Amino acid sequence: MSNYSFIMSQGLFSHKDALTIPYEERAVQFGDGVYEVIRVYDGRPYLMKEHIDRLYRSLEAIKIDLTIDNPTLTQLLVDLLEKNNMTSDGHIYLQVSRGSAPRTHVFPEKTVPNIYAYVKDTPRHMDKLEKGVHTIILPDERWDNCYIKSLNLLPNVLAKQTAAENNCYEAILHRDGVVTECGSSNIFLVKDGKIYTHPTTNHILNGCVRMAVERFTTNLNIPFINEAFTIDDINDADEIFLTSSMSEVLPVVQVDGKQVANGKPGTITRQLQKAYNTDAQIEGTKKAIS
Amino acid sequence: MSNYSFIMSQGLFSHKDALTIPYEERAVQFGDGVYEVIRVYDGRPYLMKEHIDRLYRSLEAIKIDLTIDNPTLTQLLVDLLEKNNMTSDGHIYLQVSRGSAPRTHVFPEKTVPNIYAYVKDTPRHMDKLEKGVHTIILPDERWDNCYIKSLNLLPNVLAKQTAAENNCYEAILHRDGVVTECGSSNIFLVKDGKIYTHPTTNHILNGCVRMAVERFTTNLNIPFINEAFTIDDINDADEIFLTSSMSEVLPVVQVDGKQVANGKPGTITRQLQKAYNTDAQIEGTKKAIS
Repeated sequence: MSNYSFIMSQGLFSHKDALTIPYEERAVQFGDGVYEVIRVYDGRPYLMKEHIDRLYRSLEAIKIDLTIDNPTLTQLLVDLLEKNNMTSDGHIYLQVSRGSAPRTHVFPEKTVPNIYAYVKDTPRHMDKLEKGVHTIILPDERWDNCYIKSLNLLPNVLAKQTAAENNCYEAILHRDGVVTECGSSNIFLVKDGKIYTHPTTNHILNGCVRMAVERFTTNLNIPFINEAFTIDDINDADEIFLTSSMSEVLPVVQVDGKQVANGKPGTITRQLQKAYNTDAQIEGTKKAIS
Repeated sequence: MSNYSFIMSQGLFSHKDALTIPYEERAVQFGDGVYEVIRVYDGRPYLMKEHIDRLYRSLEAIKIDLTIDNPTLTQLLVDLLEKNNMTSDGHIYLQVSRGSAPRTHVFPEKTVPNIYAYVKDTPRHMDKLEKGVHTIILPDERWDNCYIKSLNLLPNVLAKQTAAENNCYEAILHRDGVVTECGSSNIFLVKDGKIYTHPTTNHILNGCVRMAVERFTTNLNIPFINEAFTIDDINDADEIFLTSSMSEVLPVVQVDGKQVANGKPGTITRQLQKAYNTDAQIEGTKKAIS
């Protein structure tokens, strides 16, 4: 894994070792901030506009006033990739907090938001994309405003940890039996040729790959239905798949120890994986699915 | 306000300027940690055992294995007060995160928890204790495990900010009309000489002053009923008060712009404030209530 030296902080570039966070900082003491993880292929950011637009929506929702505007931030991230000479597959991590101030719940006055971003190599998980993953069903214990991509990720951490301890890749979360999303991805159920997924209410994050998949289905003529399914519906599903910037379009072949349909990735999932490869300009032998 | 120089970090004492947090730290990126705020009077910590015991319960709930044990940590905080020659009213802030590691939701392996604590002067808010405070009712949008004193405080921050913007000291939170607690305090309703408050389920934090108040009521022969009240019950309340380590026992005299009873702190609230003064050994003219 490459050890990229440059980090962006407060709009400036420095060596990554130069950045530390004060202990009286709103992210550290309150999780009072938002973030994005942007996929990078061959050094190119994928769905950058969707991510940056969402970041500003999250900032607005929690009333953080970032003086760096959308085009400037986008350029800063492009510069970050260039300065690091990044040409591999990886990701950008980008975080904005309300800033540094003596601890008090109420927004501190005259505090400048803290922003930082770094890049990392992260190879695509080809084996999982090919064979699919196992999942576990857990209650969705998160707060009511999951549409905000906030730094309050403890419930997600605990759900994904429980999944890992049960040899699963993801936790499928439900509220009173209604499937919302997963620990760090959106989830989709295919039945009779149609795709079902939770509508983009306050109970789910509107994933950038979710947006891309909805776009793909138009060209592929696959009905995309913004309607939640239940944990019982999973028993009769023809296919299940996840999406996230790091997971891409990922087949789910097992839920709570039971096979999904015949236990193999389904045809619509495969179609969407191919559409993803095309959209992300993943070429030749680097494609996940042959 | 005194500028205490010593901070405790990883069981060692150093100058506060020496402590910073790595940007890839679990508190910074996930809020993956827990904390306590311990009240200090004349340099003496109040309800220290209750706070430290609760910290270890929170740590256990999110599976952080702190190698520093309870008596050692208690002594470290006593030493922190002594090293700073603290003799005033103030507080100790204490935080433990899962540690520093490359970002991944699942618990990182072989990571040592990060612990730090500092002290600050914080005068008692005598005027509020005497006259009472105004509050606003807001929906409780927090996660399902509020019994854990975690660093995921964004909903609390937003609720307290909305309260402040409405010239209120606190936000009274409710789930479907049932009052749980406040942005950073427990809440109690007095009716016909009895005290009602939400039971210590997963939906509230079991406050250390809440525990103390329950203890006071035994001596005072006041029925303490662990039964939730509703936002409608507030209209008929004889008294309402809050508790927290920083708020102490605080009368609520207005809710959503409407007076509570006659708009003055009630007699049971006053009795509990006096019991608090006695228990915390607040003497003479320093007592909040004459």
